[in-house]
Amino acid sequence: MKRTTYAGLVDEQYLDQTVTLTGWVQKRRDFGGLIFVDLRDREGIVQLTFNETNAAALKVAEEMRSEYVIEVTGVVHLRSEGQENNNIKTGKIEIEVTDAEILASAKTTPFYIEDNVNANEELKLQYRYLDLRRPEMQKNLRIRSKIMSSAMHFMTTHDFINIETPILAKSTPEGARDYLVPSRIFPGSFYALPQSPQLFKQLLMGAGFDRYFQIARAFRDEDLRGDRQPEFTQMDVETSFMSADEIRHLVNEWVKVMMKEVVDFDLDTQSIPTLTWQESMDRFGTDKPDLRIAYEIQDLSATVAQSEFGVFANAVKDGGVVKAISVPGGADHYSRKDIDKMAQYIERFGAKGLAWLKVTSEGVSGPIAKFFAEDAQQVIDAAGAQVGDLILFGAGRFDVVSATLDYLRRQTAKDLNLVDNTNPWAFAWIVDWPLFEYSEDFDRWISAHHPFTMPNEEDLHYLDEGEDPHKAHAQSYDLVLNGFELGSGSIRIHRMDIQEKMLKALGFSKEKAHEAFGFLLEAMEYGFPPMGGIALGLDRLAMLLAGQENIREVIAFPKNSRATEPMTKAPSRVEQKQLLELGLFTSEDMAD
Amino acid sequence: MKRTTYAGLVDEQYLDQTVTLTGWVQKRRDFGGLIFVDLRDREGIVQLTFNETNAAALKVAEEMRSEYVIEVTGVVHLRSEGQENNNIKTGKIEIEVTDAEILASAKTTPFYIEDNVNANEELKLQYRYLDLRRPEMQKNLRIRSKIMSSAMHFMTTHDFINIETPILAKSTPEGARDYLVPSRIFPGSFYALPQSPQLFKQLLMGAGFDRYFQIARAFRDEDLRGDRQPEFTQMDVETSFMSADEIRHLVNEWVKVMMKEVVDFDLDTQSIPTLTWQESMDRFGTDKPDLRIAYEIQDLSATVAQSEFGVFANAVKDGGVVKAISVPGGADHYSRKDIDKMAQYIERFGAKGLAWLKVTSEGVSGPIAKFFAEDAQQVIDAAGAQVGDLILFGAGRFDVVSATLDYLRRQTAKDLNLVDNTNPWAFAWIVDWPLFEYSEDFDRWISAHHPFTMPNEEDLHYLDEGEDPHKAHAQSYDLVLNGFELGSGSIRIHRMDIQEKMLKALGFSKEKAHEAFGFLLEAMEYGFPPMGGIALGLDRLAMLLAGQENIREVIAFPKNSRATEPMTKAPSRVEQKQLLELGLFTSEDMAD
Repeated sequence: MKRTTYAGLVDEQYLDQTVTLTGWVQKRRDFGGLIFVDLRDREGIVQLTFNETNAAALKVAEEMRSEYVIEVTGVVHLRSEGQENNNIKTGKIEIEVTDAEILASAKTTPFYIEDNVNANEELKLQYRYLDLRRPEMQKNLRIRSKIMSSAMHFMTTHDFINIETPILAKSTPEGARDYLVPSRIFPGSFYALPQSPQLFKQLLMGAGFDRYFQIARAFRDEDLRGDRQPEFTQMDVETSFMSADEIRHLVNEWVKVMMKEVVDFDLDTQSIPTLTWQESMDRFGTDKPDLRIAYEIQDLSATVAQSEFGVFANAVKDGGVVKAISVPGGADHYSRKDIDKMAQYIERFGAKGLAWLKVTSEGVSGPIAKFFAEDAQQVIDAAGAQVGDLILFGAGRFDVVSATLDYLRRQTAKDLNLVDNTNPWAFAWIVDWPLFEYSEDFDRWISAHHPFTMPNEEDLHYLDEGEDPHKAHAQSYDLVLNGFELGSGSIRIHRMDIQEKMLKALGFSKEKAHEAFGFLLEAMEYGFPPMGGIALGLDRLAMLLAGQENIREVIAFPKNSRATEPMTKAPSRVEQKQLLELGLFTSEDMAD
Repeated sequence: MKRTTYAGLVDEQYLDQTVTLTGWVQKRRDFGGLIFVDLRDREGIVQLTFNETNAAALKVAEEMRSEYVIEVTGVVHLRSEGQENNNIKTGKIEIEVTDAEILASAKTTPFYIEDNVNANEELKLQYRYLDLRRPEMQKNLRIRSKIMSSAMHFMTTHDFINIETPILAKSTPEGARDYLVPSRIFPGSFYALPQSPQLFKQLLMGAGFDRYFQIARAFRDEDLRGDRQPEFTQMDVETSFMSADEIRHLVNEWVKVMMKEVVDFDLDTQSIPTLTWQESMDRFGTDKPDLRIAYEIQDLSATVAQSEFGVFANAVKDGGVVKAISVPGGADHYSRKDIDKMAQYIERFGAKGLAWLKVTSEGVSGPIAKFFAEDAQQVIDAAGAQVGDLILFGAGRFDVVSATLDYLRRQTAKDLNLVDNTNPWAFAWIVDWPLFEYSEDFDRWISAHHPFTMPNEEDLHYLDEGEDPHKAHAQSYDLVLNGFELGSGSIRIHRMDIQEKMLKALGFSKEKAHEAFGFLLEAMEYGFPPMGGIALGLDRLAMLLAGQENIREVIAFPKNSRATEPMTKAPSRVEQKQLLELGLFTSEDMAD
């Protein structure tokens, strides 16, 4: 017998037909002489009935247990009245089984195969093949697959050439920590797994391919967070002779098609806003704003510069800012204790306290209300607040205030259910980024994106001797969705002189620059075309479209937060012979 | 201005229209006041003319040199009579340029950008971005891209789910040498780059995805040959509940579509032969026969068992074979000296000499002809030879004779142009492989494919205690094209008892087996479905369809034979700090 369709697809259209199905036993109920089995496959669940008319099949059904793999043949009937299940596609029918075979038995699984199962994350990763049987995980990975096939199809029908770039690449300075791969032929030398195909794709433009596309794996040996994995996938695009506007337009076109294909959503790309980085920081305190939240950050610096409340007045006097958000309905929602908790949380952003006011029909209330006896209305107006709102303030350095109010805006919107779901997919483009940003970690200026990003034409002079390169802005653009950065792109530097200045601004000596990026600098001397592109993070996009909060949910075999994979137990010890061949010794060898 | 089309696409349809083009200067001829420039982009070349009517543009053209990147706007005219070039799409027209701009200049390139350029391979790899500008390389990588998009489209429209599996995986015994990646979090432990996604895809079937597909990167740290690279790409497929026949049928369907899309060839999949491994070895001496060569190996063992020629008689007596090929027209083509050279070459296969006969109208000639005075006609008949043929013999062990005659068959067909080009794409399926093969390298039995291959049902008992497992054949199938193995597949073992026996036959203790493959063996206890699949080598397929003889020609940035990439100079030294973080020391450190 051969399977005729998927179990989850059998509906009334199959009435009175004989079908053959394969799949897993989800549930079995034995009424003695009558057995019901829920048969599960990737498309869903169908109800099987075994009775004494088909004694041989019934006998087989008596042996069945959860997660057994079975093959059955039977006839599709309507369920008796009152037995229908309108929540599933197969809910109106059942299959009276005439023949049954057990293809594989199963031990009792360490956790139930059902969504929202209450099992330890590590256990679920160890038995990932069982966890992946859950309908939700099946759906998640299919969404991911659909995104990839949508991208492939769009790109190839738009003349993009799919070109694979090396995984065994070269370690380069700048960027995150590389994963290294020791060379056996040259002991002491190492390949590095690429942090992105950036340089290769630029060289492909130098080679004249004009439009490149790849669904590329990239790697970073960094400490892991919920939305980070040691390896990740990006949809990588590069084009020659196109402007930043044209590239964004192209991406918009794809996103529109993809949103329709994957989540059946009609995206109006005309309505995707383009904000400058500065505007995004000013209005939302972040470079990846969640535009589903209506209330924005208001600048009250001018309003409170002369305030009797010293914290505000001093912040402005010291060159800082005073800003606020007005949380609609927040006055009643938050107790003083709640606000104290928030105040404590925001210390991680460098905030030294949380000033707040509740807006009442009489004016404002709260511990600092007394300082605003005179100018309460001015503050209310400047904060854009209504009666019943909670005004939360940030005062001090721009970056601290921004990070604080960004967090408070997102958190309060979550608490009060103020995320606008009538606009479920809020895309935005953030453009005109600073070329550099100051890294507290490295205690020096680093590229805001990467060292190959073209400065704005009018800012090129900032890279010259005696000027401040950190004033320059870049021809760069990030695509943001619902408060997450989906991807990042830019026009690239295609001239050696600019590239050399850029590397110099990052602290590279001319010698170091050529040692690390000589092949790129040299390529720029042989007719390098103007170029630009983008890389979109597939993991995060799939996570958002699948409605998940962790990228592990859209990766078949993810690593845990220690970068290990509990099922196969990678990484692992290897044989001494393998290390000898590579000319490598571990710390343990040294200790011997 | 914005590019209106590609340079290589401008033909008579654009007559009298104004076009804007970008690209590279292929050639420039200056006649003083009249300059011709061949402009190249990825689609081809078009002729530009600059004259004094457009003095500004002419002035720009005077600056242009080979490989400069330019942007031009001009009007499409017919070329003057006699100036047409019918070999190219744009050969009937030229563009009178009205505006021109140099976007990037270029130094003199280390080699000319043209096909069949006579440059050192290493130099071409060092300047790969220049070598890739050649039309042939552009074509090769586009063929590769087309194969990928054809596979993606076919698979997704046939319900396959595209699932990515880890690159940071676990080192396992069996198979080739792993590339290792040291773990920073667990010094002394290593990830391994996967030699294939085999185990992951089997676990995905265990997870119920039913149909999996991936264009997957795989890695082997082996010494390199012309058709091997440290990293390679496979089109990886796995299905549940399908028979070997059904899987082959599915692959045939895709290959048919792909051959049409990529090389516009109508493949008759009905006519693809399926040979057992034994039949292939008997008829062609190899498991990847080139079916474009009509002459096959004939077994003359019975015919010559009593021969006066002791070499033949003894070979048969000692349990060996005597086989031959008859090379059509070979008698006149090959001198005795030529044959001596062949005899020397085949020593590498273990052959101890090369017996031969030329078939003449009088019988046979050659040094051993005297032994066949009586039975010349029987030998001629058994060898299937005609007058004018050269009969080449192999005598001795089956494997030595097979390897020898396989080589001689392919080589003589090449020499005499006997490869049938009316059948340019000779596919074949080779099935029913031995489960094990003896490895001279390891001096033990290894899997002919991999340890997860299901034996034929009737051969299962060979894996039992006291029987000879090496007699078992497998439910496996290779797809062959024109003498190259394109891919290899099988039905997999889905039962733990069989898998354990299989690993035991490979010399694993029960403990070792569970240490290495415990997660798989355990998965088989939780309802593992019957499954099978295939992996097709993209590099080799692209190489064949592009008419190339080396896979480097279809890889954007390949490694050379020392596994280095001469452009970026990977692998390379890394900073001591990076090794310290990994707890690693190199041989050099130890020498200090």
